[in-house]
This record gives sequence, structure tokens and C-alpha cells, in this order.
Amino acid sequence: MMRKHYTDVEKKAVTQYGSKGTSIRVLVSPEDGAQNFILRRFEIELNGIIGLHNHIQEHEIYILSGKGEVFNDEETIKIKENDVLYVPPNEPHGYRNTGNDNLIFLCTIPLLE
Amino acid sequence: MMRKHYTDVEKKAVTQYGSKGTSIRVLVSPEDGAQNFILRRFEIELNGIIGLHNHIQEHEIYILSGKGEVFNDEETIKIKENDVLYVPPNEPHGYRNTGNDNLIFLCTIPLLE
Repeated sequence: MMRKHYTDVEKKAVTQYGSKGTSIRVLVSPEDGAQNFILRRFEIELNGIIGLHNHIQEHEIYILSGKGEVFNDEETIKIKENDVLYVPPNEPHGYRNTGNDNLIFLCTIPLLE
Repeated sequence: MMRKHYTDVEKKAVTQYGSKGTSIRVLVSPEDGAQNFILRRFEIELNGIIGLHNHIQEHEIYILSGKGEVFNDEETIKIKENDVLYVPPNEPHGYRNTGNDNLIFLCTIPLLE
């Protein structure tokens, strides 16, 4: 069994898709032995955004703290602490912080070949 | 995209493996469209336990709040808020609450056939 604290993992800037004020920590990955999915922790600063994008991998997301929106061209859904999101494969999605604190969430993504 | 609050999901008692004072909410499952893994939220009350067990599915775990231990016959690891755990396939594991509040964690498990 492996235990770490999330701060043991280096924080990296997310710059794709026109994202701003956003960092990612990859908490559990194949380097830890993971075989099926990867656990990541995102932090979006005030007025930060992860730009609209899509991919074949689905997402299962848990909002740890803050307030924001997940959006695409069809809909905008408000999200807050202790909300849960499912984003299906190939569905465009972006996130923005609309609150007064960082928007922090866990996002699991499958290891697909 | 699907959003729910964790309290929208019914809480069920965990009674296998001699577990006590423990409940589970299955937050995202194939009923929501999930294709690769399931996101669950566990809550272990004061002095509660999930008994030792094992299975072929790995776990990726994030501790939301509380203090406790993950254990097997070989080792006991202390866990607390914002810790991350990886439990490999087939590795025996149990959890106990050793704190003064509920021990709450997210646990992702692959959909394996």
C-alpha cells in the first residue's frame, strides 16, 4: 500500500486549451502501480479557467472546495463543494472558477490505449 | 454531463468483512454512464471499521476528513485529511477510524470483468 499527502506531489501549470490560473497534481499514476485509471487534483485560482476541450476518456469528478461552472457550447452547470460530476467520453467540457476562493476538485481519468 | 450532490445518493450500510459503523454512497456508476471505474464515498463513524478483505481490483483513495488507519497483517499506515492511498490488486486491506470525527474518504475501483 502507498500513502502520500497531496502536497508531496509537484504542482504543474495547466496551459493547454487556453487555460489560465490552473494547476494539476497527478496523485496516483502508473508510476505508483496504477493499472486502470489516474487520480488528479486540480486547483483553479480566482478567475481561472480550464478551456473547452474533449477526448475519448470519461471523467469522474468530486469538488473538494470552491464554486464554479463546468461548461460547453450546449450547457453551463454550476458546481460547488461536495458536488459530483460525470463527463462522458468525447463530450466537450471546460471549467471556470466563479467564486471567491480557489476551485479545487479531484478528477479521475481512465488509462485507455 | 451529470452533476449531483453526494447527499443525493442513498447511503447504505457496509456489513461485509465484519465491518461496523460504516456506510457507502456509490456516487458514479454504470447507471450514470461510467464505463471504466466507479466512484464511491465511505463514511466510518467513531470506532468504526471496515474489516480486512481483498479482491483483484485496485483502489485509488483520497481522504476527505478525519483520522484513521489502513491495515493488513503486514503493516498499519496512519491516514488523515488530504492523504492519498493506492492499494494494489489482491492486497489485503481494512480501515479503522482512530479519530474523534467521522473518517470520510473517496475510493475509486475499476470495473473489471
